Amino acid sequence: MIKVKVVGSGGYGGVGIVELLLRHPEARIQTLVAATETGMPMSALYPHLQGFCDLPILKPDDPAAQEPADVVFFSTPDGVGMVQARVELEKGARVIDYSGDFRFNNMEEYAEYARRIGRDPVHKSPDLLSSTVYGLPELNRAAYAVDQRLVGNPGCFAMSCLLGLAPAVSSGLVDPSSLICDCKTGVSGAGKKPSPTFHYPARYENMNAYRLAGHQHVMEVERMLGALAGEDIRVTFTAQVVPMCRGIMSCLYGTLAEGITAQTVQDAYAEYYRNHAFVRLYDESAAIGTVHVRGTNFCNLTVGVDNRTRRLRVVSHIDNLMKGQAGNAMQNMNILCGFPETMALDQPGFYP
Amino acid sequence: MIKVKVVGSGGYGGVGIVELLLRHPEARIQTLVAATETGMPMSALYPHLQGFCDLPILKPDDPAAQEPADVVFFSTPDGVGMVQARVELEKGARVIDYSGDFRFNNMEEYAEYARRIGRDPVHKSPDLLSSTVYGLPELNRAAYAVDQRLVGNPGCFAMSCLLGLAPAVSSGLVDPSSLICDCKTGVSGAGKKPSPTFHYPARYENMNAYRLAGHQHVMEVERMLGALAGEDIRVTFTAQVVPMCRGIMSCLYGTLAEGITAQTVQDAYAEYYRNHAFVRLYDESAAIGTVHVRGTNFCNLTVGVDNRTRRLRVVSHIDNLMKGQAGNAMQNMNILCGFPETMALDQPGFYP
Amino acid sequence: MIKVKVVGSGGYGGVGIVELLLRHPEARIQTLVAATETGMPMSALYPHLQGFCDLPILKPDDPAAQEPADVVFFSTPDGVGMVQARVELEKGARVIDYSGDFRFNNMEEYAEYARRIGRDPVHKSPDLLSSTVYGLPELNRAAYAVDQRLVGNPGCFAMSCLLGLAPAVSSGLVDPSSLICDCKTGVSGAGKKPSPTFHYPARYENMNAYRLAGHQHVMEVERMLGALAGEDIRVTFTAQVVPMCRGIMSCLYGTLAEGITAQTVQDAYAEYYRNHAFVRLYDESAAIGTVHVRGTNFCNLTVGVDNRTRRLRVVSHIDNLMKGQAGNAMQNMNILCGFPETMALDQPGFYP
Amino acid sequence: MIKVKVVGSGGYGGVGIVELLLRHPEARIQTLVAATETGMPMSALYPHLQGFCDLPILKPDDPAAQEPADVVFFSTPDGVGMVQARVELEKGARVIDYSGDFRFNNMEEYAEYARRIGRDPVHKSPDLLSSTVYGLPELNRAAYAVDQRLVGNPGCFAMSCLLGLAPAVSSGLVDPSSLICDCKTGVSGAGKKPSPTFHYPARYENMNAYRLAGHQHVMEVERMLGALAGEDIRVTFTAQVVPMCRGIMSCLYGTLAEGITAQTVQDAYAEYYRNHAFVRLYDESAAIGTVHVRGTNFCNLTVGVDNRTRRLRVVSHIDNLMKGQAGNAMQNMNILCGFPETMALDQPGFYP
Repeated sequence: MIKVKVVGSGGYGGVGIVELLLRHPEARIQTLVAATETGMPMSALYPHLQGFCDLPILKPDDPAAQEPADVVFFSTPDGVGMVQARVELEKGARVIDYSGDFRFNNMEEYAEYARRIGRDPVHKSPDLLSSTVYGLPELNRAAYAVDQRLVGNPGCFAMSCLLGLAPAVSSGLVDPSSLICDCKTGVSGAGKKPSPTFHYPARYENMNAYRLAGHQHVMEVERMLGALAGEDIRVTFTAQVVPMCRGIMSCLYGTLAEGITAQTVQDAYAEYYRNHAFVRLYDESAAIGTVHVRGTNFCNLTVGVDNRTRRLRVVSHIDNLMKGQAGNAMQNMNILCGFPETMALDQPGFYP
Repeated sequence: MIKVKVVGSGGYGGVGIVELLLRHPEARIQTLVAATETGMPMSALYPHLQGFCDLPILKPDDPAAQEPADVVFFSTPDGVGMVQARVELEKGARVIDYSGDFRFNNMEEYAEYARRIGRDPVHKSPDLLSSTVYGLPELNRAAYAVDQRLVGNPGCFAMSCLLGLAPAVSSGLVDPSSLICDCKTGVSGAGKKPSPTFHYPARYENMNAYRLAGHQHVMEVERMLGALAGEDIRVTFTAQVVPMCRGIMSCLYGTLAEGITAQTVQDAYAEYYRNHAFVRLYDESAAIGTVHVRGTNFCNLTVGVDNRTRRLRVVSHIDNLMKGQAGNAMQNMNILCGFPETMALDQPGFYP
Repeated sequence: MIKVKVVGSGGYGGVGIVELLLRHPEARIQTLVAATETGMPMSALYPHLQGFCDLPILKPDDPAAQEPADVVFFSTPDGVGMVQARVELEKGARVIDYSGDFRFNNMEEYAEYARRIGRDPVHKSPDLLSSTVYGLPELNRAAYAVDQRLVGNPGCFAMSCLLGLAPAVSSGLVDPSSLICDCKTGVSGAGKKPSPTFHYPARYENMNAYRLAGHQHVMEVERMLGALAGEDIRVTFTAQVVPMCRGIMSCLYGTLAEGITAQTVQDAYAEYYRNHAFVRLYDESAAIGTVHVRGTNFCNLTVGVDNRTRRLRVVSHIDNLMKGQAGNAMQNMNILCGFPETMALDQPGFYP
Repeated sequence: MIKVKVVGSGGYGGVGIVELLLRHPEARIQTLVAATETGMPMSALYPHLQGFCDLPILKPDDPAAQEPADVVFFSTPDGVGMVQARVELEKGARVIDYSGDFRFNNMEEYAEYARRIGRDPVHKSPDLLSSTVYGLPELNRAAYAVDQRLVGNPGCFAMSCLLGLAPAVSSGLVDPSSLICDCKTGVSGAGKKPSPTFHYPARYENMNAYRLAGHQHVMEVERMLGALAGEDIRVTFTAQVVPMCRGIMSCLYGTLAEGITAQTVQDAYAEYYRNHAFVRLYDESAAIGTVHVRGTNFCNLTVGVDNRTRRLRVVSHIDNLMKGQAGNAMQNMNILCGFPETMALDQPGFYP
């Protein structure tokens, strides 16, 4: 039974991993830490957890918060993990960070990312970058060390795009200069903090595109796809938000390379995900929507070819708080700790 | 490991019990039966179950559907269970029926109920009525036989009202002639069948009262409360529907009997539910809503006294598809089979 | 053509009256004033108004904001109108205030109200109280002076309850000590300011009761009903919020006085509202919901009698931002200025 | 004052044009006709119209339905207008048809369209095709005859795409083989008929793509864009539905032709829509969503260039029931009758 600490337990990413840990047979929540709303039980902040998780939420400097843990999740914004992860690693913990702090393996890439999101380009723990891994196991499992101890959990939009495009790009099915990612998310992707844009009356009957000048997740997509393609890749990326809570649906387009048929495409996707339990493949006639992955760690991909225009079209569906965040983080914990990859993630959610 | 058959697996009540059975460590789904949408796997009808429940949905007369089971759920409309339960009981099964068919213990009460809902007042299996039990364990556990084999799972509105009023009525805290039940439900309470009233554009921004002339659940409320009070009781009942999916919130009012104080009330409720895991009590300052019971078998009760008007006010929150339907049915299965009452029901749902 | 100034133009009450003024044939918006988000055109804050209202939003102390107007709306929180109305009145304006500042005619009543909402009980302009009127024309038209210049626009919940109960109370149809108001509102009733409670993910699938210890609108209800009954009245009032934008549905209950029949009730309501264009009456079989008054100044009342329990039940439907706020304010402007009462309010909204 | 007849008044397209006609100063609704739900007042079907439109809904063969009108709207599915329009035209009416029946000018094009939607490719009134016009005035005004008497009102998705792409295609700003239309609609676009897909519980928390094999509106887009480009055009088109009522947001992509700059693009769009009141242009930093056109006839276009990938990206926002249907139909009526194009359409809707 491993002991787990969650830093940033008050947000949606925190409560998400707590819910998953509660049903994990090999893990026990030991410590909850947050910067605000401390001093109360987790179940006071999230009443649905009453009787399930009544642990207190501690301040970062609380002595009780310093107890060593086997795994530490940083469900925190950019800038926290890069400062605090070191001490946890030194105490022997494995660390999984939700932010961009550990998604890149060198200072240059981090600096470029940081500039895009308006942060200081100087990483606070540059020596740790060489030992982190971009934590999307379906694409990147081979890059995990045997005793991997630090993981950068990817961005939700990025995961939806990468899972949808990786087979096509790595097999040369599409022209790498032709990629377009048209991505829609539910509102929970913006987190727990209230804002005018996500106030119920402003949102219940509204959809819009945003950050058209450049979303911070684009760079992850381009870097990983570039690595798969063996060349630099630039994608057009459009982030949109629609009036629902959980779900990302990304429509992904690329011009087919010469000679590629619908069958080549289907075969390549089937082969690529043959051993990956969390990716399910459908053809374009399937009646699949985001609700079918809600509350789960699955990515449902509808893979099709528009023969009239010679384009690949993949529709990628995930729950942004599960495969897009806490679920994928749990999958990473399972890998790092040697548990079956699907442990605590083998539930179908509920419907409707 | 018991074998379970679900009749009426295609509706919300059916998929609900299937989801719960999938996580029950002592039960295995053996047979799924439905009147329509048969011949396909359950996961074709409900894609979120792919890989979890791919059993075929059988027609009632399919030979494979006749195999004996240990427990049979009838997630069917009024009139089905009363015809088909007998053969299951004779094959040795325990039977839990969701409809009004087995909520009453004699022909007279059934006839009155049937007339209210416009059905034939003659019960098709009157001899079974004496051996059924009204399946609300928190109120009626003493009425279950040691080897109880047949249960009428209560109506969702009725459960929300009964759980909220039983302590007050049984302890004489309120004037039994003063009771008002103002009940709001999410749309899933109306089931899976599309209708003009629950078409998305007609509903997303609309709330309304309905069946003001008399809702079918009133009679259950009056009969059970009357039994607790030892006298006939008539309640005013208002059914309303609001634009959400899961949740019932019932505001329950009664005039306090002389000498009753806020403290008497709190004590009586605490005592009544002392040994019942699924009822949680709050005072009127608690920030509790239906979302906190979503996906769970809990009933959250806010219990308060309006001293200015000398009235009891209880706000009762349940998930109409869980404590209001499949969750309570699972709780009944646990009781009938000798499992811990909370088995497979000890999860907090997810948030948001 | 009258000139109108709107103070507090940035909130929902402000944009609501601006929308109505834009279609009023006898009024012209002259000045928009707000405490925050100033210095930009109204249409920058509310892009749907682009080309319709591009006037700048001025700070209160902007010289341009001092120009005299014929009518001034204070769409402001408690405490603003009582300070600023005087100067507008002295410049010759008629003033309609949305807050509680001018809903009471003497210092004692105001002080009691102010205490309930946690404000200073000392009114800043006590000499104005004798000349204000509680602005619910359907009940209070006789109290308007011939040259009425100051109006306190009522609270939204209060209006829904008063319109539903006034005929019964004024005709002695019900026992005045038996009244219960079970009120549900859409989220827009809470205004434009974001909060954790009304953040989309926290609200889309949640309903809850709130301020059970005492909502600020109760006092208006009790005072007006008491005046109609000729005796003190205390009501039980339950405020609830459901996941939709516009709409209040109040279920109103009272025990019928002896000898009162369903017919007496119907006749009394029909007579009471005979000359009031904005109240529409229905019996309990009508399929009426809040969507049917959305965007309009109507109050739809379903009036029924539960003969089994001898109770009156009225379901009152309004759009909380129209009859509950800006629409009623416009109706008051029409009365004060001698225009037909329905001017600019004779539109049916849109559906769905 | 012209007299208007609405055939198909019971659907969303029918009630939409009725709402607009009620505020048109030069038109009067004379006759309402429908195939079902006849014999009742319009306000019984749509209670928000009580007191505004209480006309009876007549069967098509009712003698009263035969009275000549100045304008007849066919708010009917494919196949109705092509049979019934002739007699209305012969009685002297102008006819505006919502379906695909009159969107094409010759039998070949109609046949191709009909085959795509699974209908008989033989048009029932082929002689009328040469005299109809594709009714999108912003693109096609020059094709209206001086005394135009028959109009095919375009499809909602098609209008959102055409308004967004016409300036780029007609000015050669983009490679015509590179066009992708990623289109999301609210549920009202599917009409009033209930279906499992649009049942509230199935939809409130779900988004999905549909008809990926080919949506019926694609052909209109390709034909009109092809005419503007002077060459055949094939677009990739993805229809999606999200959980809201009113609104289409189409993200439109094309590879920039050589030498085209962001400035060229902005200038071309500004010039193209210089004289068109219903198109409003924004740059990519504008906070624009579908709610800002809700209830109005506007099309808001966000026009931008992704310099990193040399792509044009236009985000097109309309209300699918207004500019996408009844509003555009009213605009056509104004043109055909010589009224100002914006008559009865110069209102901003309401917010929130």
